Amino acid sequence: MDDCVFCAIVAGTLPAALVDEDERTLAFLDITAVTDGHTLVVPKVHAADLWEITADDAAAVMRAVHRMAARIRDVLAPDGLTLFQANRPAGWQDVFHLHVHLVPRRDGDRLTRPWTAAPVPPESLYGTRDLLRPREERP
Amino acid sequence: MDDCVFCAIVAGTLPAALVDEDERTLAFLDITAVTDGHTLVVPKVHAADLWEITADDAAAVMRAVHRMAARIRDVLAPDGLTLFQANRPAGWQDVFHLHVHLVPRRDGDRLTRPWTAAPVPPESLYGTRDLLRPREERP
Ligand SMILES: [Zn+2]
Ligand SMILES: [Zn+2]
Repeated sequence: MDDCVFCAIVAGTLPAALVDEDERTLAFLDITAVTDGHTLVVPKVHAADLWEITADDAAAVMRAVHRMAARIRDVLAPDGLTLFQANRPAGWQDVFHLHVHLVPRRDGDRLTRPWTAAPVPPESLYGTRDLLRPREERP
Repeated sequence: MDDCVFCAIVAGTLPAALVDEDERTLAFLDITAVTDGHTLVVPKVHAADLWEITADDAAAVMRAVHRMAARIRDVLAPDGLTLFQANRPAGWQDVFHLHVHLVPRRDGDRLTRPWTAAPVPPESLYGTRDLLRPREERP
């Protein structure tokens, strides 16, 4: 993708603070880090989002996330870690090359919870369940 | 884990609105759904968080997430989708069996962004990069 900044980082034509690389993935620090060590993991192949990436590349991204999570723990010793992955503008995506955010967390840091939990009525929950379960299981 | 609610769902001793299952993973609707179709994917084996799960199980979870994302798109046709995965209380984890949230998004829904982006000074970014990159690459 000619105009994709993450493809440019993968190609080496745009500099980045690289922290990890394997055959299928690259990891670098977010230049608008919300906390110290805020890392992005991307597939080397261009895939806009979770609906475009292959299952194999998605799994490779997760293996890289798992590896970077361990390194972040060992080096930065955060109190927690939160992953975010945004798809489409409605899902808060702003760079249209799939990326997983690893955000090291500290007690009392400046992030705010994106929602407040409230129980769903069972009839609503099981109605959606009937829609979403695999076709072969439906009556 | 005797007192783990997600292990009880995996064991079948606690009911849940199941939507997907494979050898290593189970998916069910969140009973405190933030939007319709809010799904959780968990490994069948108990692992508290991303620091405890094996890379293979993490990859299997991601493959299930990828499969459920496609099904959510096909069935519910959301405007977007956001993944969240919380580790430790400081990372907003509340059930201590690893789970990935798939939250179908709609333009104008009631979620709020967890942070506002601001550029990081390059010296800070590259200082952290020097800490986080693999040891064999360090000078
Ligand atoms: Zn790209
Ligand atoms: Zn458990």
